[in-house]
Amino acid sequence: MRIGVLTSGGDCPGLNAVIRSVVHRGTDVHGDEIIGIEDGFLGLIESRARPISHDDVTGLLTLGGTILGSARVQREKIRWAVENSAELAARLGIDALIAIGGEGTLTAAKLFSDAGLPVVGVPKTIDNDIDATDATFGFDTAVHVATEAIDRLKTTAESHQRVMVVELMGRHTGWITLTAGMAGGAHGILVPEKPFDIEAVARMIEDRFRRGKKFAIIAVAEGAQPLPGTLRFEHGEVDRFGHQTFGGIGTRLALELENLLGKEARPVILGHTQRGGTPTALDRVLATRFGWHAVEAVHQGAFGHFTALRHTEIHLTPIADGVVRLKTVPPDRWIESEAVL
Amino acid sequence: MRIGVLTSGGDCPGLNAVIRSVVHRGTDVHGDEIIGIEDGFLGLIESRARPISHDDVTGLLTLGGTILGSARVQREKIRWAVENSAELAARLGIDALIAIGGEGTLTAAKLFSDAGLPVVGVPKTIDNDIDATDATFGFDTAVHVATEAIDRLKTTAESHQRVMVVELMGRHTGWITLTAGMAGGAHGILVPEKPFDIEAVARMIEDRFRRGKKFAIIAVAEGAQPLPGTLRFEHGEVDRFGHQTFGGIGTRLALELENLLGKEARPVILGHTQRGGTPTALDRVLATRFGWHAVEAVHQGAFGHFTALRHTEIHLTPIADGVVRLKTVPPDRWIESEAVL
Amino acid sequence: MRIGVLTSGGDCPGLNAVIRSVVHRGTDVHGDEIIGIEDGFLGLIESRARPISHDDVTGLLTLGGTILGSARVQREKIRWAVENSAELAARLGIDALIAIGGEGTLTAAKLFSDAGLPVVGVPKTIDNDIDATDATFGFDTAVHVATEAIDRLKTTAESHQRVMVVELMGRHTGWITLTAGMAGGAHGILVPEKPFDIEAVARMIEDRFRRGKKFAIIAVAEGAQPLPGTLRFEHGEVDRFGHQTFGGIGTRLALELENLLGKEARPVILGHTQRGGTPTALDRVLATRFGWHAVEAVHQGAFGHFTALRHTEIHLTPIADGVVRLKTVPPDRWIESEAVL
Amino acid sequence: MRIGVLTSGGDCPGLNAVIRSVVHRGTDVHGDEIIGIEDGFLGLIESRARPISHDDVTGLLTLGGTILGSARVQREKIRWAVENSAELAARLGIDALIAIGGEGTLTAAKLFSDAGLPVVGVPKTIDNDIDATDATFGFDTAVHVATEAIDRLKTTAESHQRVMVVELMGRHTGWITLTAGMAGGAHGILVPEKPFDIEAVARMIEDRFRRGKKFAIIAVAEGAQPLPGTLRFEHGEVDRFGHQTFGGIGTRLALELENLLGKEARPVILGHTQRGGTPTALDRVLATRFGWHAVEAVHQGAFGHFTALRHTEIHLTPIADGVVRLKTVPPDRWIESEAVL
Repeated sequence: MRIGVLTSGGDCPGLNAVIRSVVHRGTDVHGDEIIGIEDGFLGLIESRARPISHDDVTGLLTLGGTILGSARVQREKIRWAVENSAELAARLGIDALIAIGGEGTLTAAKLFSDAGLPVVGVPKTIDNDIDATDATFGFDTAVHVATEAIDRLKTTAESHQRVMVVELMGRHTGWITLTAGMAGGAHGILVPEKPFDIEAVARMIEDRFRRGKKFAIIAVAEGAQPLPGTLRFEHGEVDRFGHQTFGGIGTRLALELENLLGKEARPVILGHTQRGGTPTALDRVLATRFGWHAVEAVHQGAFGHFTALRHTEIHLTPIADGVVRLKTVPPDRWIESEAVL
Repeated sequence: MRIGVLTSGGDCPGLNAVIRSVVHRGTDVHGDEIIGIEDGFLGLIESRARPISHDDVTGLLTLGGTILGSARVQREKIRWAVENSAELAARLGIDALIAIGGEGTLTAAKLFSDAGLPVVGVPKTIDNDIDATDATFGFDTAVHVATEAIDRLKTTAESHQRVMVVELMGRHTGWITLTAGMAGGAHGILVPEKPFDIEAVARMIEDRFRRGKKFAIIAVAEGAQPLPGTLRFEHGEVDRFGHQTFGGIGTRLALELENLLGKEARPVILGHTQRGGTPTALDRVLATRFGWHAVEAVHQGAFGHFTALRHTEIHLTPIADGVVRLKTVPPDRWIESEAVL
Repeated sequence: MRIGVLTSGGDCPGLNAVIRSVVHRGTDVHGDEIIGIEDGFLGLIESRARPISHDDVTGLLTLGGTILGSARVQREKIRWAVENSAELAARLGIDALIAIGGEGTLTAAKLFSDAGLPVVGVPKTIDNDIDATDATFGFDTAVHVATEAIDRLKTTAESHQRVMVVELMGRHTGWITLTAGMAGGAHGILVPEKPFDIEAVARMIEDRFRRGKKFAIIAVAEGAQPLPGTLRFEHGEVDRFGHQTFGGIGTRLALELENLLGKEARPVILGHTQRGGTPTALDRVLATRFGWHAVEAVHQGAFGHFTALRHTEIHLTPIADGVVRLKTVPPDRWIESEAVL
Repeated sequence: MRIGVLTSGGDCPGLNAVIRSVVHRGTDVHGDEIIGIEDGFLGLIESRARPISHDDVTGLLTLGGTILGSARVQREKIRWAVENSAELAARLGIDALIAIGGEGTLTAAKLFSDAGLPVVGVPKTIDNDIDATDATFGFDTAVHVATEAIDRLKTTAESHQRVMVVELMGRHTGWITLTAGMAGGAHGILVPEKPFDIEAVARMIEDRFRRGKKFAIIAVAEGAQPLPGTLRFEHGEVDRFGHQTFGGIGTRLALELENLLGKEARPVILGHTQRGGTPTALDRVLATRFGWHAVEAVHQGAFGHFTALRHTEIHLTPIADGVVRLKTVPPDRWIESEAVL
């Protein structure tokens, strides 16, 4: 068969490992030809693609990013592509497509499948927020990077008796922040699922200080929100330390805490370092297994399905079941962590 | 309550994180006193123990090893201890025990529980071979260390056109070797569950060379066995390169391949580096959650149970169910890896 | 002898390794008593100190930060302390002092030495800007952390065809930025020693794009300055992407480039992660050697001197010679790097 | 100009970074054509070479090994090549050669230069044993890998009250063992430069145990030698634990200590993991600078010279001066480390 493969949406460590695995399984075992489509659905629309051979994927297991590129495509363009999917597939000469991407990509994959371009999905999100799978690749790497940063911040916070606020990825869900926060031993963890009370955060830190501890680490997801009306400084306002409020929640939170506690608080924004670079061993294996099973799914005709991890096994799951709702951090996990405020 | 805690059996990254978590949850939330028992069941027998406070566990999240020590105890001594468990518990003044250990420890924990010393178990094995839990802490760290080593060996093997044999931990099961082998992109993976054919290994390597590849990496579990009668060199024999056969399967395999291929093959034995040092983020979180749930289990009276991960949640599981059989690498995973020979 | 030891100024990986080394050499070999003074010169002034034994320094080799704490002290207080140094030393019962710190600390150490409190200095700066020594501990660790971040950013920048601006430590000198920039293969390196032309930076990036490269990494020291009048956006101004100018040079530079290039540019601010955590092997060894030689210097009476690395050996150097001028990045190194713009 | 470049001798992290740097400087700045010669001097003899462009070196900064390959060549073949150097150069159409290699390569480079093939040398040795340069690339990476292993072994040794013997690279010099041993806090360091007294090692360990310490780490260079007649077990002999003496000094030393101390001692042999994989930041920068200066040397006609680091600058040094003698660990450093026995 001629199988197209594309990567869509934000960067995620392990994308290249999926591509490598698809090529290994497809070409070596099934005698498939694998066609790499450039820049996600944009390459499908514009017929930009190239065959990928076994040699082309040498070294991809450890390489972050995606050799196929990725681009955002407007919803109308996707709709147009779905309507013309048979012709687009014919132009590239592909019999089936493996689409690696997040919720949006899987939803689109379902539309293509229904419209006649047979697609198998591979879920991709560093946020770990797809409900039907126990895990997605990229998440462990993001947590690894964030945890290393918290480990490093701890000693410097302790030596200088400081409050450190680490802003981590996660607009809608707090998995990275919860997991890296627990792994790094953060004293406060703020997630989008639970609006935080800035005064409760300040009280927790003051309690620590009263018990003789000299520092505190707060891990905050970029999408975490204060309870309405509890932040004291407006954007652009200058506080008594001469610091101006600006930027994301991490920077704002540090400023608020500084003023509530009367004590230096510093923000650290890890940003894109969390989604680049060599994947962890766990993510490489998960990505490799997803790629293997995606090829098998194509040959079994399990279109409109995506690969999902349950316990330790990979299951093919109807896309419709996987994207119904976001997997958010449940209250059980807040209680268990003892640091979600 | 006064809760004893002990670590038993081989070293495993995350043991200290469990201890820390038990102390945090027990003392801060339930007002328990936590008594650290030294050197596993030996300390229970010899009444060597000390209270552990919140301050004592500072820094333990990232520290490998176990601050309580661990020692092997003869089976008869355990039997004696079980018979005298009420008195031993009374001497230490403990109401319940959290025993962190492998299959043997959990089995003993069950015996103690039945004999009247209420015990909750926390499973510990870097080998990941306990059936009732999706994962155990320490395993991910061992895989991480092994994968880093394979990553490093690859470039040197390639530059010098060499065969490298990496011997990894796993006497009875091949999980570390399978996982690190897949994560590192090893070309052959040899596990205890499937006796290997040395000539099949040699043929795979020769095939690679014929396709223009200049090196090969073989990951072999220390417990992997050749098919009977297929190794050509006896222990102590000297080959035509002047190399003597000795040591474990890694060293022997390198020598056999060297002679079958007429090409340099080098063994690397990672040994105890796999079970020491800072745990990965994943292992820290799993260990922390196990500790939290073990304390809850004590307060719920769920004795004779142990903490187990299923999907993403921790469940209390009867010890009797968990130690029935070893979780071995199933044939499905051999096929999927495409490298198990 | 009774030897006081203090750490002063900003945090720096390797401080604890110096303390450990001073204790090992002092107590084990010379039979000294080592007195740890808390919070730098503040502890000297307030007579806050405690003896440190061999057991107290267990585990310090790998621990970031400083167990003695560090605090900034106003210049007048230092002056007062110098005048009263004999009495302050008598209160703590110390015969000599080892002061670990940056340029300011060394200068103060000289004043104390001249006033009668015999002091040996150990230079400490992650910025690597002390002229009389080939290297200082902490610098290699900062470069290591920064390089890992650039490595990770590269793959994500490449996959998404983005410009990434990484702001690194260095207010007055560009050593960290130059070294991590070269190690990470940054395409542009901006250092405080050479005001940069924002349009030259933009042209370099456009040249890359014209040659088919799809991304660029710019490493910028926090103290780097644009040529006067070349930035187009005022603080607080909002650009056509809706982004507001705020924060340090990294954030501002990303915004300027975004507007000059018409292409997404993202800032990453590593901040305090660069100065915390476990020191690299190199820094541990340098710190250990400095500690050893500082104790020897005390016993040789080489007061008013500090430990300096030249080639591969440690030399005792008059403090007066070491703090004359800042070691800045010389033009030779700009040329050699080919990326300093 | 057309400049050949070859890598010769054992693998070393940073080789690819030199090649990348030569290509960047040569092609981008001087308009040179860079010809990559395969498998060291063998490729020169057999005229196996290919042009290397800017695109060919993408990604090489972080890649271990050498894309050019490396092979050992018999001395007579080198002699023949020297005699025929003009013709060999003509066949490849090269005007000059940059030879990256160890002592043997630099010596050969000198012979070629004298015979009319203009050669500039770049020193390469993970052992750090070339006298005329303060440092060579690859060494810091080897130390980094070895130190990480010792860090991991420490916690497992401590938990199980064990003696661990770590065998590190270094046949003739002990720099890796000294440096990683100090960085890892090894309690005994055994180097080739000083034959060790096995009973002194055992006494040091017994002293530790008497002071209440429960474990010991011994770092031993593969070339370290016992004082004559002090090992008790012959090769192949079986001790009372049923362990057989075999293998290198690490394995033998563990067995001897086990018998002298009556306590479990385990060897760990890191082997080739020390010379593979991604170079440290320091090694990448040094390799890059060496490559830059080698190209400059070619254009300045500084043939018969090699690049050497002195303090923080690169100097071109006559090859004759650089290979006179091995840089061994001097007694000053033994004393300073306090662990060399």
